[in-house]
Amino acid sequence: MNGNSTVNNIKAFGAAAATDSLKVLNIQRRTVTAHDVEIEILFCGICHSDLHSAKNEWHNTIYPIVPGHEVVGRVTNVGAHVTRFKVGDLAAVGCMVDSCRECEYCKEGLEQFCEPGSTLTFNSPDKHLGGQTFGGYAESVVVDENYVLRVPENLDLAATAPLLCAGITTYSPLKHWNVGPGKKVGIVGIGGLGHMGIKIAKAMGAHVVVFTTSLSKQEDAKRLGADEVVLSTDPEQMAKYGKSLHFILDCVSAQHDMDAYLNLLKVDGALALVGAPMEPLPVTSFSLILGRRSFAGSMIGGIAETQEMLDFCSAHNIVSDIELIGVDEVNDAYERLLKGEVKYRFVIDMASLKAKN
Amino acid sequence: MNGNSTVNNIKAFGAAAATDSLKVLNIQRRTVTAHDVEIEILFCGICHSDLHSAKNEWHNTIYPIVPGHEVVGRVTNVGAHVTRFKVGDLAAVGCMVDSCRECEYCKEGLEQFCEPGSTLTFNSPDKHLGGQTFGGYAESVVVDENYVLRVPENLDLAATAPLLCAGITTYSPLKHWNVGPGKKVGIVGIGGLGHMGIKIAKAMGAHVVVFTTSLSKQEDAKRLGADEVVLSTDPEQMAKYGKSLHFILDCVSAQHDMDAYLNLLKVDGALALVGAPMEPLPVTSFSLILGRRSFAGSMIGGIAETQEMLDFCSAHNIVSDIELIGVDEVNDAYERLLKGEVKYRFVIDMASLKAKN
Repeated sequence: MNGNSTVNNIKAFGAAAATDSLKVLNIQRRTVTAHDVEIEILFCGICHSDLHSAKNEWHNTIYPIVPGHEVVGRVTNVGAHVTRFKVGDLAAVGCMVDSCRECEYCKEGLEQFCEPGSTLTFNSPDKHLGGQTFGGYAESVVVDENYVLRVPENLDLAATAPLLCAGITTYSPLKHWNVGPGKKVGIVGIGGLGHMGIKIAKAMGAHVVVFTTSLSKQEDAKRLGADEVVLSTDPEQMAKYGKSLHFILDCVSAQHDMDAYLNLLKVDGALALVGAPMEPLPVTSFSLILGRRSFAGSMIGGIAETQEMLDFCSAHNIVSDIELIGVDEVNDAYERLLKGEVKYRFVIDMASLKAKN
Repeated sequence: MNGNSTVNNIKAFGAAAATDSLKVLNIQRRTVTAHDVEIEILFCGICHSDLHSAKNEWHNTIYPIVPGHEVVGRVTNVGAHVTRFKVGDLAAVGCMVDSCRECEYCKEGLEQFCEPGSTLTFNSPDKHLGGQTFGGYAESVVVDENYVLRVPENLDLAATAPLLCAGITTYSPLKHWNVGPGKKVGIVGIGGLGHMGIKIAKAMGAHVVVFTTSLSKQEDAKRLGADEVVLSTDPEQMAKYGKSLHFILDCVSAQHDMDAYLNLLKVDGALALVGAPMEPLPVTSFSLILGRRSFAGSMIGGIAETQEMLDFCSAHNIVSDIELIGVDEVNDAYERLLKGEVKYRFVIDMASLKAKN
């Protein structure tokens, strides 16, 4: 699209078709333009939406696809007008690499809701090179500095990667719905999102009640920061929490009984969905009407808020619980992710890609 | 319960069983205690929930039932400690006649969400006489002055009655979700609730877009105050309003496509349900997540807010569009209500009850 862009060929790890495994691919990145930062990718988290996209489960994937939007690395080059980063800095990239910057939402710092649509880190139209954007399962990435985040120096770098999606996806609604001291907050589901939600809600000062279908996760929930853990399959335990919570962060991405959770909310309470179940969720009108309750949803966060989240995590020493893998383990990791067999986020050590021929 | 209560026998109009028509019944009202106001009922509106309750459709009706919670009349007696009313004043009673006055919600003026449960105007446990409370299809009612509303002198009295339920049910969410100048508000469904919603939203200064399935109601919607009217069965018309509304007041009490309406909301928009469809409403997660939208519900309003609504209606000359009937027409009116054959609220002239033997 932009005829002036020159390119570098780099190695990435992605899928050529919905039925393919991921493998080494060669892709192009633009050379830095005036406002760009080039980042050598050190670690990239694996998000459930990487898997959805690689398999074309949302029916919008353009192939080849290189997933990855939980990117941390080190700056290797900067454009002539870049002011916020210099070579050698730690840097991170999340779910977006650009947006229109002019609509009401971009102006409010809600770039995730950009009116014409933000440019996602992968599988979005690439304004510079044409074709689609390629994500963080790659040696490097080039991003406008306004969409690059500063990485706190005190956090484990690999375990910081998932903050860029799982972290902001849970931080943003907890912040938006005023979670803090004196608030009783429910976290539903303990996975990549839920385990971050527990840590962040606790650090915000809330009383955290975790709901899980799995007895085996009860101890772990407490280790992560839960004040109370409720087995959601036990109606007696659930009944005890009726009308008691100010806010619920719902991290479940499968069908589940919304009424059961809505009825745990106090008057004016809200439940925010951050998982994305594919099937419609039935809601009984009285679950909402009888307490002026809200059934809401939330999606990542804006760029400034993502930085705020990273700084918050730095101050509270919060990172993700991860399992570090090499690129050769990514396809297996996708299988294990489907079975929920990870505590709680896979992160790819990108040195393993560099080492491949 | 209160052994000191003495009683008056009065005429009312109600049902002795779910399968019975409504007819004249004799009931008891307590004589005024220190804080009570006795009101001669002049007019009583017919709300859809009167019908639900008379027919036991919510499976909680205690018989005999005397419905009616849109009550206006004139004060005929006051207790020794009553300060806010005197004999001869106009007065009104809405959906509640008492509440615990001590819980967090009562203290906040949200008596409709009273923790142990407010005392509803009919079919609630009667703290004074035992048994159940009897509603406004009656010659008179005795209510604690704290739950009695002042009636503006400038409004048509019969047409004021429906404000006590239909008015506050629409005013409260419009107020709570900050409807006013600069806001684009959708009203879904033009009936008893919807027609009040249109009038009140317009008076609040909002741009009002009415959604109806019935072409025949388009002109009437404009007469009521709609700036625009959309035929909701026409996908092309609906598509034009995508992501454009700040708030939607949903007055439909039957199953309908929630996603179609949620997708009309801007980022951070809310849809509040005030109708009460019996079947669960399916909601797609993306309808909420992609705009941080809320699917909410709302139920009447607190006592202070009900007074505020009456004063607002007085200032803006707002009453309900009504069809005035006698008690002998109530059973037919119920049939017509089921078919939506009323523009837009039935009100009973209680002189017709007095006239009966």
